[in-house]
Amino acid sequence: MNILLTGAGGFIGSHLTTALEKEGYRVHALIRSPDAVGKQHVLFTGDTLALSSYLKEEKISGIIHLASYFTASHTPEEIDVLVESNLLLGTKLLEAAKEARVKWFINTGTFWQHYQSAEYSPVNLYAATKQAFETLAQYYRETSEMKFVTLKLNDTFGPHDTRPKVFNLWNKISRSGEVLEMSPGEQLIDISYIDNVCDAYLRLASLLDKGDEDVRSGDTFGVTSGERMTLKELATLFEHVSQKPLHISWGKRPYREREVMVPWETFKTVPGWKPQVSLEEGIRRTLEEMEQNQ
Amino acid sequence: MNILLTGAGGFIGSHLTTALEKEGYRVHALIRSPDAVGKQHVLFTGDTLALSSYLKEEKISGIIHLASYFTASHTPEEIDVLVESNLLLGTKLLEAAKEARVKWFINTGTFWQHYQSAEYSPVNLYAATKQAFETLAQYYRETSEMKFVTLKLNDTFGPHDTRPKVFNLWNKISRSGEVLEMSPGEQLIDISYIDNVCDAYLRLASLLDKGDEDVRSGDTFGVTSGERMTLKELATLFEHVSQKPLHISWGKRPYREREVMVPWETFKTVPGWKPQVSLEEGIRRTLEEMEQNQ
Repeated sequence: MNILLTGAGGFIGSHLTTALEKEGYRVHALIRSPDAVGKQHVLFTGDTLALSSYLKEEKISGIIHLASYFTASHTPEEIDVLVESNLLLGTKLLEAAKEARVKWFINTGTFWQHYQSAEYSPVNLYAATKQAFETLAQYYRETSEMKFVTLKLNDTFGPHDTRPKVFNLWNKISRSGEVLEMSPGEQLIDISYIDNVCDAYLRLASLLDKGDEDVRSGDTFGVTSGERMTLKELATLFEHVSQKPLHISWGKRPYREREVMVPWETFKTVPGWKPQVSLEEGIRRTLEEMEQNQ
Repeated sequence: MNILLTGAGGFIGSHLTTALEKEGYRVHALIRSPDAVGKQHVLFTGDTLALSSYLKEEKISGIIHLASYFTASHTPEEIDVLVESNLLLGTKLLEAAKEARVKWFINTGTFWQHYQSAEYSPVNLYAATKQAFETLAQYYRETSEMKFVTLKLNDTFGPHDTRPKVFNLWNKISRSGEVLEMSPGEQLIDISYIDNVCDAYLRLASLLDKGDEDVRSGDTFGVTSGERMTLKELATLFEHVSQKPLHISWGKRPYREREVMVPWETFKTVPGWKPQVSLEEGIRRTLEEMEQNQ
């Protein structure tokens, strides 16, 4: 089975490439700059006809679309890249996929499309571009046989994560002993370990390959840790696993504008999928890798 | 009252500029190329901060967004300009408008967002970009005080219309006597005379200026002729007004893919607005102008 993967060079993409290959898929990475590396890859310069020829020649049966420009709080200058990465690229992918009669397309969304668990209420402009892409995709859904589904992620973590996320920050102060100022910390966190995230993509790809009736075009699934806790409680768990105290000064910073106190609650998960690695075990594995690369 | 108008150089925009000025508004045309002409205008090169400064300095209280890239059936090469014109430009306008605390924003949508009168079902990719813009706009609605409303248009016509529309085509064959091949012609047409369209924008702008409670942010209104008839019946009306026969070979061409047989039916109109010029009178005035410019 041949799969086209966008964002293969990112945190999730690199883990997912390994996981897909382990399952026997042949992964074709879509890259947008000739400098990017990868085993099997196709350079996409914006020409949808060339891309659809590639999809046909390589018999791509599914596309997993991870590539995205992320910003929690955008500046006016970021609007161009948000639209280009989160709307234009995906639309061209869909155009090429429709032309090449690709069977399925897994899109990646965010819990932030559902502020206060609304059917749609974007936390920020990033989340609005994710929703707008689904709006555009509906045209392709209605005019082709392609199954288009969206996997929505919230926070994720794991080894080799270079993003400026909370565990990297905590690992740093855990070693240095410095004091970190944070918000009051009462917001509920739903953070997924990378292996569980990859499992959700694999399971969904497998259901789509089989043409399973449980998955219909337009469906949306959430990826959850199944272990929601407040940021404060998460810090305690981190201390427990690392066996070192964190010096956090809670409440010294305000919550951000439209801070999500309770993440999206009204989602379905991928049929047959459950997180296999606990939060504690995930943190342990992540810390081990951090130790090794110290 | 100062209004920023995009698409001021187009068919609707040029009529609307005149209509707004007659009502006492000062119209600022947003242009995107230095070649474009206009009385009061601002050249927008993509810099939202510069635009928001202009909006503040010129005390712009409302924006009417008409500019759009239209294509009934896109080619892959048109995806860039569809996204750029129908999504990127509007998002930057909203960003600048939010920053400048502009009071209201009238967006222009299309009946084609509602194939078979669905809440959302795009007839084509053009309609999907219009819907996706509303999706993006929701972020600005929820994070500012700006009133954002959408006026949805179906077909429009009137004097000085250079678009390749049906009346121009019919006027041509009416004079030459040539035979035109068309679809079976049973699709219902809802085509609005330009003065009625301008009236709807004026009425909506006036309600927004007054802060009228009948218009809430996020509202959508349709512009209708109030006189729906099949394409065949419209041809008969055209013959009646022009007093010349049309030689149309009905059914020689197929309906287009996703042809709209019954335009969107489930819309509200702008409170207090009704079409003032009948279809017959509109056709008469349009034909008069065509005669003069023969």
